[in-house]
Amino acid sequence: MSDNSFGKLFSFTSFGESHGAGIGCIVDNVPPRLPLSEAIIQPYLDRRKPGQNRFVTQRREDDEVEILSGVFEGQTTGTPVAMLIRNKDQRSKDYGEIARQYRPGHADYTYQEKYGIRDYRGGGRSSARETAVRVAAGAIADQLLKAALGPSYRVRGGVVQIGPHAIDRDRLDWDEVDNNPFFCPDPVAAQEWEAYLDGVRKEGSSAGAILEIVADGIPVGLGQPIYGKLDSDLAAAMMTINAVKGVEIGGGFALSAMDGREAGDEMRTGPDGPEFLSNNNGGVLGGISTGQQLVVRIAIKPTSSILTPRQSINVDGEEVDVVTKGRHDPCVGIRGVPVAEAMMAITLADALMRHRAQCGLLD
Amino acid sequence: MSDNSFGKLFSFTSFGESHGAGIGCIVDNVPPRLPLSEAIIQPYLDRRKPGQNRFVTQRREDDEVEILSGVFEGQTTGTPVAMLIRNKDQRSKDYGEIARQYRPGHADYTYQEKYGIRDYRGGGRSSARETAVRVAAGAIADQLLKAALGPSYRVRGGVVQIGPHAIDRDRLDWDEVDNNPFFCPDPVAAQEWEAYLDGVRKEGSSAGAILEIVADGIPVGLGQPIYGKLDSDLAAAMMTINAVKGVEIGGGFALSAMDGREAGDEMRTGPDGPEFLSNNNGGVLGGISTGQQLVVRIAIKPTSSILTPRQSINVDGEEVDVVTKGRHDPCVGIRGVPVAEAMMAITLADALMRHRAQCGLLD
Amino acid sequence: MSDNSFGKLFSFTSFGESHGAGIGCIVDNVPPRLPLSEAIIQPYLDRRKPGQNRFVTQRREDDEVEILSGVFEGQTTGTPVAMLIRNKDQRSKDYGEIARQYRPGHADYTYQEKYGIRDYRGGGRSSARETAVRVAAGAIADQLLKAALGPSYRVRGGVVQIGPHAIDRDRLDWDEVDNNPFFCPDPVAAQEWEAYLDGVRKEGSSAGAILEIVADGIPVGLGQPIYGKLDSDLAAAMMTINAVKGVEIGGGFALSAMDGREAGDEMRTGPDGPEFLSNNNGGVLGGISTGQQLVVRIAIKPTSSILTPRQSINVDGEEVDVVTKGRHDPCVGIRGVPVAEAMMAITLADALMRHRAQCGLLD
Amino acid sequence: MSDNSFGKLFSFTSFGESHGAGIGCIVDNVPPRLPLSEAIIQPYLDRRKPGQNRFVTQRREDDEVEILSGVFEGQTTGTPVAMLIRNKDQRSKDYGEIARQYRPGHADYTYQEKYGIRDYRGGGRSSARETAVRVAAGAIADQLLKAALGPSYRVRGGVVQIGPHAIDRDRLDWDEVDNNPFFCPDPVAAQEWEAYLDGVRKEGSSAGAILEIVADGIPVGLGQPIYGKLDSDLAAAMMTINAVKGVEIGGGFALSAMDGREAGDEMRTGPDGPEFLSNNNGGVLGGISTGQQLVVRIAIKPTSSILTPRQSINVDGEEVDVVTKGRHDPCVGIRGVPVAEAMMAITLADALMRHRAQCGLLD
Repeated sequence: MSDNSFGKLFSFTSFGESHGAGIGCIVDNVPPRLPLSEAIIQPYLDRRKPGQNRFVTQRREDDEVEILSGVFEGQTTGTPVAMLIRNKDQRSKDYGEIARQYRPGHADYTYQEKYGIRDYRGGGRSSARETAVRVAAGAIADQLLKAALGPSYRVRGGVVQIGPHAIDRDRLDWDEVDNNPFFCPDPVAAQEWEAYLDGVRKEGSSAGAILEIVADGIPVGLGQPIYGKLDSDLAAAMMTINAVKGVEIGGGFALSAMDGREAGDEMRTGPDGPEFLSNNNGGVLGGISTGQQLVVRIAIKPTSSILTPRQSINVDGEEVDVVTKGRHDPCVGIRGVPVAEAMMAITLADALMRHRAQCGLLD
Repeated sequence: MSDNSFGKLFSFTSFGESHGAGIGCIVDNVPPRLPLSEAIIQPYLDRRKPGQNRFVTQRREDDEVEILSGVFEGQTTGTPVAMLIRNKDQRSKDYGEIARQYRPGHADYTYQEKYGIRDYRGGGRSSARETAVRVAAGAIADQLLKAALGPSYRVRGGVVQIGPHAIDRDRLDWDEVDNNPFFCPDPVAAQEWEAYLDGVRKEGSSAGAILEIVADGIPVGLGQPIYGKLDSDLAAAMMTINAVKGVEIGGGFALSAMDGREAGDEMRTGPDGPEFLSNNNGGVLGGISTGQQLVVRIAIKPTSSILTPRQSINVDGEEVDVVTKGRHDPCVGIRGVPVAEAMMAITLADALMRHRAQCGLLD
Repeated sequence: MSDNSFGKLFSFTSFGESHGAGIGCIVDNVPPRLPLSEAIIQPYLDRRKPGQNRFVTQRREDDEVEILSGVFEGQTTGTPVAMLIRNKDQRSKDYGEIARQYRPGHADYTYQEKYGIRDYRGGGRSSARETAVRVAAGAIADQLLKAALGPSYRVRGGVVQIGPHAIDRDRLDWDEVDNNPFFCPDPVAAQEWEAYLDGVRKEGSSAGAILEIVADGIPVGLGQPIYGKLDSDLAAAMMTINAVKGVEIGGGFALSAMDGREAGDEMRTGPDGPEFLSNNNGGVLGGISTGQQLVVRIAIKPTSSILTPRQSINVDGEEVDVVTKGRHDPCVGIRGVPVAEAMMAITLADALMRHRAQCGLLD
Repeated sequence: MSDNSFGKLFSFTSFGESHGAGIGCIVDNVPPRLPLSEAIIQPYLDRRKPGQNRFVTQRREDDEVEILSGVFEGQTTGTPVAMLIRNKDQRSKDYGEIARQYRPGHADYTYQEKYGIRDYRGGGRSSARETAVRVAAGAIADQLLKAALGPSYRVRGGVVQIGPHAIDRDRLDWDEVDNNPFFCPDPVAAQEWEAYLDGVRKEGSSAGAILEIVADGIPVGLGQPIYGKLDSDLAAAMMTINAVKGVEIGGGFALSAMDGREAGDEMRTGPDGPEFLSNNNGGVLGGISTGQQLVVRIAIKPTSSILTPRQSINVDGEEVDVVTKGRHDPCVGIRGVPVAEAMMAITLADALMRHRAQCGLLD
């Protein structure tokens, strides 16, 4: 019952703090003979890397991953794959104030109250830095899914709203996400966001975002009802990401207002078998994948670390004003994209293994 | 890794199909010496019972629970509490069509494809009937939390939107939920919904809903970061409920559009200790409860079983039109309230036990 | 983390007390389309049934199993299989003394101290009655293994020692176990035990036993190192059986005294592939099955319930003499055979599913 | 369901191969504010360190542990404690033969057959080198138990038999284990073993051993029946240790031959409460600790790596003779003592947390 593990068959256990020796994870139950190396994993990490443009934190992290075990001569051996990313950019500084103050919207207060102690340096365990580990684990999941499902499989995602500014879905083109600093699938919106976020930053504020992650090439049958439903596992996965406050599958909250005659996705027989005429259910029915595109959206709150002074208290219960200086993302949602993609891939790899374990045994 | 279990310390495992011998569950790791009996559990089940008004299915289910184990002389013994609810209202009928057709929006197709077999009677395992089991398990969780947290603890919820019609939050009064057939905390909205739902039913359609579940009297510190975050566990719990397509905590999706200067909940020192000036985070920071009211909202899609004919296919891949006759809720969301309350209580009981297990050990 | 569950993929969760409403279990993750019915399971239970001869308890239990879920038209559906065995033979009696006394060698004292409450009727949860549930779950595991591994697969076992009287291994013939009331694979020893056990009973005492369980037709590769080793899982499984105080694999404790040149099982190439020249390791190397016969032995202590008065204390700490009247097995080890076979089958079914889940995914 | 994890609440996940980058683990759910540092853990590792005398492998391993996370200013923070031990002594050599041959009694054959690939260098994952990780995790468990149970708590163990030579139990003195190179609690036996083991080594052979591990100061109540029994968990723990082929609790196999009138441990009331007149059950009744000394014995087979040529096959199925050169322990059992102590401490820490989680909640 490790609280720092995710997944049941394809499972990983994470460790590490923002300013400790390093972060890392152990990925267990990886099938043997899967090609794997640091060179395969590193590009996934590079996508998430901070310091790449002015809209994400300027903290420099090389995020160089070292595989410590489980790989031999370029292939997984079936034994646990441990990975380590050393923390390099630990500016020595006086943490005096941060050590004693609770930043509004952060986990400072809850960690202190829960544990009676906290590593306040850079947010410690609650820092988004931990998400690099998921990206590394997600890289293995992604390789596994590619090997198992073939070239039709693909997980990708992007930012579909920043602050109050949503993309125009008529312009949605997933191939656009790599052409702008926002992982935005709408090139026009991306340009608008640039101006908007510059304004937000100048005001000493921050912005939230909505991300959409989709998976193609997922076969029908993944997901283990009732308490291992695919959408339940996806929701759990996404809600573990820092600053995520909402998850929806397919039509999500909008479905609540839809007429029952529209909501259910009708079926016909197409040239390649069953076809759905719509995808309001986002590729999941009864907790099991339908074979359609999986569609998940997540809501990310505005970055809590802002320059504008906020009212708070300190560890002695005294009232203070908190100003968070330093290198912070004006919109943490942006760098959440590779993380959410990773959590999707991990959840799917786990679901695939669990499905095959039960339903493939006697075939 | 039972896929039909929920919870890590306070855990329950569920079984049963809509039209089989019965449904039930085993609740494990219940603390000993908790007062428990069928009489304590039954009222929770009665709240969820169908057939109570014209807005929920007219299927008659007595939902009479029998405790099979784990209770001795009115108290739990620390051994597993098994509960059984026999299926009584199993009208014998010819399932010929349903046996071969996939109802749009249902799990018929995905179960058949996943398992190569399905108990099609009444939806089998995917029927909402299974949720009675959660209510029974939730009753134990609720008793446990009352015993552990005292009278300030309370979980309750209601429907805050049906179809496109939301309540007026200025009129929100949780004490109103028992005064109308919709668990609606706004008496005016409840009246409007009556007319609206009658119309929906006459049109042979159905409506979705948004539910809000809140918990009071929750101490700071519950939730186990990173992969046992309280909000992640709550999201997983809610997403296992039939027809749920979205979950949000506190401000949820609306937070994405909020200014960073508004979003973070500021703190002051009040007469009884730390106080938050707002609750955009819904009582969770960094995956740990803040001591504020916990606020969760879930989106429920319109009932898939409707009288209006829908296009679909059958098990042989032939195109068919499906009309779902019989006793179905025009809005399944309504009866979801006691179920969502139960999942909230179960998640909290589990979080409380996990927190105390780790952080209370050396105190 | 249900403490009343066993197995990771093929898993079951057990409930019930000796004199409560009934005992039962939920078996989860059973592959779909496995033929199953009460008629298939009942013969396994009948083997374990008490009251069949004078060497086992005369308590009459029909142990009639009812499948509550997970089976449709004679096949498993992939949903949880719940099974219930009602307690029928509950003689109403005054439990006054037993309710207050701790029987030496029983769990009375530890249950009371642990939980602060106990269902003392017939030993409650600690009664060997619970083992009927394992036999029912083991029946499903056995069916699964037969379907997956074919006719070469077989689990069987017997008693190889009662009190100080061991069988002569030169006479070991597994086909003999059904020809005597002791599950003894040596017909000569069986006759000797009859006289011996009659003497033990007349003296108001009881006898211990050693059981041996073997599995044939197990492929190489089952077992998940390091903490899911096949022998570790087998040891855990066997040690959960009432009165078991020791487990050994292959040569076991005798191996400790063996010369290193004898101990390691040498290999040659035979007509059907690799062959081992001996089986000191009992079919497990590095926690993984070798393809040889699996050999497990377990030590069972003498029945604690005996007519001879024993010194003890009561719940008030007062010193008392305890005489256990009633219908007790002079040697509980005998009826342990079907239980140990069941635990072996369950462990193997789980190991098979776990192995295939990981190592079969990319094949 | 990580197969490389052990423990449910106090849990650790291990990684690493004998000749890879390093070995290590993540210990999760450690209570916060427990004093911890490398300096506290290192002495535990030093006890297990090879190269300390001629009876253990001459491989030089510094086994220097680095804490990567979960500790801040000398105390645990409640977040996962990751530990890394780099592999330093990796002599570069030609593994040509070992890479292709299956050493009798080793896991070479089973790993290759299971995974279709293996890291053959030094035995890879199946090497006893992995046990250093357990000792590090065990150090944390030991610190936790000391903090929770006070000075009466203590786990210790020793070798009570090497080859056919058992200690004289009348001379058993646990304080003697540090006075000889065998962790032998009988100084006379230790001297005899020296001559015996020198002979074994000269013959190119090896010897098995029996270890006994005891725990004092364990309160009544630890252990979670039925499938989390303390003795079941201990058996599982011990059986994961390399070369262990048997486990017994208290009287163990000898109990099978004992008269029922002797076997049950009678009770009286002593000055400090309930007292047992004997400890045949080794401190466990019904899977729950009795408050007596916990007594576990394990059988360890002779080292499989010996100089004497053995018959085997290679990866192509060709028959070969295998001679294992290099630095191997003539009796691996000796260095098993700190490992078995560690597994005992880990199992007890987990049992304590699980017991308190359930039974301490409402107190």
